[in-house]
Amino acid sequence: MIIVIKKDTTADQIEQLLSRLKKANTIPLPVYNGQQTIIVLSGETDNLPLKNILSIECVETANRISAPYKLASRSTKSEDTIIEVKGIKIGGKHLAMMAGPCSVESLEQMEMAAENLKKAGANILRAGAFKPRTTPYSFQGLGLEGLKILKKVGDKYNMPTITEVLDPRDVELVEEYADIFQIGARNMQNFRLLEAVGKAKKPVMLKRGMTATIKELLLAAEYILSNGNMNVMLCERGIRTFETETRNTLCLATVPLVQKLSHLPIIVDPSHGTGNPDCIPAMTYAAIAAGANGIMLEVHPNPEEALSDADQALTIGKFNEIMDTAKPIIKAVGKHIDPLPNQ
Amino acid sequence: MIIVIKKDTTADQIEQLLSRLKKANTIPLPVYNGQQTIIVLSGETDNLPLKNILSIECVETANRISAPYKLASRSTKSEDTIIEVKGIKIGGKHLAMMAGPCSVESLEQMEMAAENLKKAGANILRAGAFKPRTTPYSFQGLGLEGLKILKKVGDKYNMPTITEVLDPRDVELVEEYADIFQIGARNMQNFRLLEAVGKAKKPVMLKRGMTATIKELLLAAEYILSNGNMNVMLCERGIRTFETETRNTLCLATVPLVQKLSHLPIIVDPSHGTGNPDCIPAMTYAAIAAGANGIMLEVHPNPEEALSDADQALTIGKFNEIMDTAKPIIKAVGKHIDPLPNQ
Amino acid sequence: MIIVIKKDTTADQIEQLLSRLKKANTIPLPVYNGQQTIIVLSGETDNLPLKNILSIECVETANRISAPYKLASRSTKSEDTIIEVKGIKIGGKHLAMMAGPCSVESLEQMEMAAENLKKAGANILRAGAFKPRTTPYSFQGLGLEGLKILKKVGDKYNMPTITEVLDPRDVELVEEYADIFQIGARNMQNFRLLEAVGKAKKPVMLKRGMTATIKELLLAAEYILSNGNMNVMLCERGIRTFETETRNTLCLATVPLVQKLSHLPIIVDPSHGTGNPDCIPAMTYAAIAAGANGIMLEVHPNPEEALSDADQALTIGKFNEIMDTAKPIIKAVGKHIDPLPNQ
Amino acid sequence: MIIVIKKDTTADQIEQLLSRLKKANTIPLPVYNGQQTIIVLSGETDNLPLKNILSIECVETANRISAPYKLASRSTKSEDTIIEVKGIKIGGKHLAMMAGPCSVESLEQMEMAAENLKKAGANILRAGAFKPRTTPYSFQGLGLEGLKILKKVGDKYNMPTITEVLDPRDVELVEEYADIFQIGARNMQNFRLLEAVGKAKKPVMLKRGMTATIKELLLAAEYILSNGNMNVMLCERGIRTFETETRNTLCLATVPLVQKLSHLPIIVDPSHGTGNPDCIPAMTYAAIAAGANGIMLEVHPNPEEALSDADQALTIGKFNEIMDTAKPIIKAVGKHIDPLPNQ
Repeated sequence: MIIVIKKDTTADQIEQLLSRLKKANTIPLPVYNGQQTIIVLSGETDNLPLKNILSIECVETANRISAPYKLASRSTKSEDTIIEVKGIKIGGKHLAMMAGPCSVESLEQMEMAAENLKKAGANILRAGAFKPRTTPYSFQGLGLEGLKILKKVGDKYNMPTITEVLDPRDVELVEEYADIFQIGARNMQNFRLLEAVGKAKKPVMLKRGMTATIKELLLAAEYILSNGNMNVMLCERGIRTFETETRNTLCLATVPLVQKLSHLPIIVDPSHGTGNPDCIPAMTYAAIAAGANGIMLEVHPNPEEALSDADQALTIGKFNEIMDTAKPIIKAVGKHIDPLPNQ
Repeated sequence: MIIVIKKDTTADQIEQLLSRLKKANTIPLPVYNGQQTIIVLSGETDNLPLKNILSIECVETANRISAPYKLASRSTKSEDTIIEVKGIKIGGKHLAMMAGPCSVESLEQMEMAAENLKKAGANILRAGAFKPRTTPYSFQGLGLEGLKILKKVGDKYNMPTITEVLDPRDVELVEEYADIFQIGARNMQNFRLLEAVGKAKKPVMLKRGMTATIKELLLAAEYILSNGNMNVMLCERGIRTFETETRNTLCLATVPLVQKLSHLPIIVDPSHGTGNPDCIPAMTYAAIAAGANGIMLEVHPNPEEALSDADQALTIGKFNEIMDTAKPIIKAVGKHIDPLPNQ
Repeated sequence: MIIVIKKDTTADQIEQLLSRLKKANTIPLPVYNGQQTIIVLSGETDNLPLKNILSIECVETANRISAPYKLASRSTKSEDTIIEVKGIKIGGKHLAMMAGPCSVESLEQMEMAAENLKKAGANILRAGAFKPRTTPYSFQGLGLEGLKILKKVGDKYNMPTITEVLDPRDVELVEEYADIFQIGARNMQNFRLLEAVGKAKKPVMLKRGMTATIKELLLAAEYILSNGNMNVMLCERGIRTFETETRNTLCLATVPLVQKLSHLPIIVDPSHGTGNPDCIPAMTYAAIAAGANGIMLEVHPNPEEALSDADQALTIGKFNEIMDTAKPIIKAVGKHIDPLPNQ
Repeated sequence: MIIVIKKDTTADQIEQLLSRLKKANTIPLPVYNGQQTIIVLSGETDNLPLKNILSIECVETANRISAPYKLASRSTKSEDTIIEVKGIKIGGKHLAMMAGPCSVESLEQMEMAAENLKKAGANILRAGAFKPRTTPYSFQGLGLEGLKILKKVGDKYNMPTITEVLDPRDVELVEEYADIFQIGARNMQNFRLLEAVGKAKKPVMLKRGMTATIKELLLAAEYILSNGNMNVMLCERGIRTFETETRNTLCLATVPLVQKLSHLPIIVDPSHGTGNPDCIPAMTYAAIAAGANGIMLEVHPNPEEALSDADQALTIGKFNEIMDTAKPIIKAVGKHIDPLPNQ
């Protein structure tokens, strides 16, 4: 059950309600979403008459949610969540176009990337400072130095930035330098990390684990939401199957499924989702036509010099072509990309 | 290696060439494609100098194909294969819109389906007379009676028809009544059935097996092509993964991959590919945007009365809506649906 | 529902019962198992009082089976099915040890194989005459010539033989020359082939499809059983997953699961199940310890000369070693291998 | 390349060697394994003549390792790693029998478990204090209180204990109370957590991720090893596939594969690996026969009262039965379970 508390309710009144709920053998979790308190109720809620709850003075609304995810469920919130970052909206009809290199490598690389991507129509800049690499002997990212470059370039071009965080101990640091947290596929069920970004203020993009079901993705989002951070967007980036022609199997049915089950925006990452430059353009168009709320693409000013994921990085030229072909499709599905302000 | 023989070559000349090739420790397979003979050469072809082959009088062209599939490979034939069925083209810019119920159930049902689907813009009628069912105790299709109904309705509405064949012993019968053979996912590697339709004259749509790689799909197509039937189209209908929210995981990256590796048209089946009515419309738009050469949808005049696959069948009304939304996307990607003649 | 008919019942009495059952809106399928008739009842059986059925004179027993597979279910038959082939038993405590080359290549090869395998303790000889190959350009087996060699060698060494059948049109031919039909993984849902061997008299080993669930495997067995052939054994040969170190992922939990759900013997094929000689011995021991009713191994007198599956074939020497190590494990789990008579 | 440094080498000498190696465009990582330093060399090692390295005074041995994992590779260390915990050995012929409830719930529960498990022959006690749960609304473990109970009970019964750690910030705490760190499947690629336990002193059991290849499992182990902790054991606990009869697909071929590729012990967890009590005994016997170095089982004194994973927990009685049946198999494969001292 989800109980929404009226905005002017005092802390005392909430405490009284919580203890009443506990006495009824339910487990109340109060979540403050920045504006008001929502109580997520688990335990023996079946015996609790809804009308009794609704008759309590400080209760605005209450309803039963049968899905195992409560705050992420469309039944809790029927309208689309729209996230705003430095004036750029993500969700509903606002298509986010996130692009950039896999890793921050240097100031020059990032400036060249940002300048060209902005010109081509991207409105969010992506790049990794902390890289989760399969082997300890690969380049692990520039760390703090990378964060500083990312911030400098984001500020210069007025582009919101997104970057991955790997460790709960780094959440504060990343929040200082970047605009959106990215939780990578390998950490989708790193619950301590999810709790840490759930307690932070900036939006989070949560990538689907390589082997996670949609239900598990929504439950992972629930860890963030139930810690008070309501600005969560999800990202389909392919699942692992037997097929080897593509790095992963990009599952675009995630887009309509998430939009039916949840109010959270759903982004698609064709770069990791296929790992195959022959497939990335077509999967970008397909994701847009399927109704995705955003696209994330790896673009490197000089792909052949990239320190990670070189195979799947697009050139600036190729990104321009994709944007051109995508335009009539974006229009056909009634979406648009919020433009960036000039610097 | 693929050796294309000049059109006016005599059977004797071809025989002589074949015995020369065998002496060189290669294994030549002559394939007559309706117009000329193509020799698919396997075995120790590495030692065979290409220029010697090209200097043989009856040889038109010859080239080495490194892919394990030869006749299906884009290297063998660079232009798109375009299949024509009763005046309707499939392939290249011609988008086939195949629709109809899962099974032929009655003449009334099929007439209602055909009339409405034609009106809505479908140009090929699908329905099964032989049904491959997981259990022996389920409805197995009307068989010959179903084929007769299908033909009657196809003739009445001037719609080409497609229907599944399950048994090499039924190939002749199905060819008599239907316009396109469908090989289902379960039979993708039923090699005797592939050989049988390879020896038939009518086009074949080969569905990807639930667990087949793209390479295996192309190799299965090769069984049909190497028996002389060049009118093969492929169909992505979802693969089996761990995800249970959808019946299968529809893998749209198949579209650009097949188009890169092969000249054969690639169709997408969102109905079986998701088995979930919430996903079918979005996956139809996505498949078109990805560049598919055709769409196959299950539509039943009365889904709640369907004898098979009732859950995933669309109503006529829903199909109309999908066609309306799809139009600007079809246009945006430069495709069109060939119109049917009036009856 | 399953209705077992008394042995001395006349055809007329059965006909009368069938028409009574049809009037009650149920769909009766009579199956003659060689000794008596069993009626598998589907349709609206919920409304049919069991006691009324039991009171019918010709009915021996009747019971409701909730599983979708009826004849394969342990609820229909609580004791293990034990299949006898030329004096060798398979099932219960009788462990079948099937071994031999992937393909019949020559009389010499097969004699060398049979002589050595028999000496080492194998009691069933396997080899393929019809080979289902991924590409049309690979060796497809010796066909009838292969069947003749197999029979000659089986007769000479008094070893029962097992070989694959691919086409319903070949069932009669294979039955003439071999002792056990093998249905390969690719044909597990080739329902017309299952029906054809279901109408034959010799035992059938049905291999699990690469992507089939246990339930689908049992339903495929049901196609054979419901056509009257009760001598069916199942075979776990690995499923397709993302792992590439092994050719397939051998799923040994199939053994206890099948033994719980069904009375049919379950064989394990570590050769195809791993395709990796480093894993075959350990998986043989594991399968025996898990309680498998038989093991199928690829052994070639000269693996490096094998025309198919050379990588995974064991040498005779290696097979001897495996048999030696396996002996105490076979004993520890209370099983034994029926010995062959001397020739 | 792996360079083993002589034991009496000074820090200065090592520093000089490292800077020489860097000048040769290689990336040296010195790892102190508690006894001596090993340098893992990546980068441009192909140009580095092995004989030049071997001629350096402080170098004991050096060899090229082509596998992407270096310290985990069998080529680096040919003899089996044997880990000792409070007198109990794990690895080689020493079979570890780890058993206990999913979660620490109370002192009484843990004492009852330990007493009975020890009596039945288990030699390591497992139980979770920090539980990674799919939903934030499930029981998350007793935390520190659970660690204290675990330690108290382990001390009382002289049983080494193993428990999961989820967060790099908890590593010190867990090391204080438990004897072996467990890294769960969801955290197999939580690289910061791997580094943290790599810097700790106590042994680590690393579980295979639900979708991880064997190669990725060994690379994850490499993160721990390359931080200096050489006492790593791996654990197969099933992968995620399409099959739904079992919770996961237990892949026993992992046992011989890991033993071929690596010197690290490999444990099997049939409880999570199948999640199905009908399969757990058979998979325990199979794992032992396959050569596993240890078994981990969930056993709860009162499974019906368990706060987590109740379905798959065995009773003490069932565990006793399994141990009895396992004994002759353990003997047949030449293994034994180290006995615990009496308390």
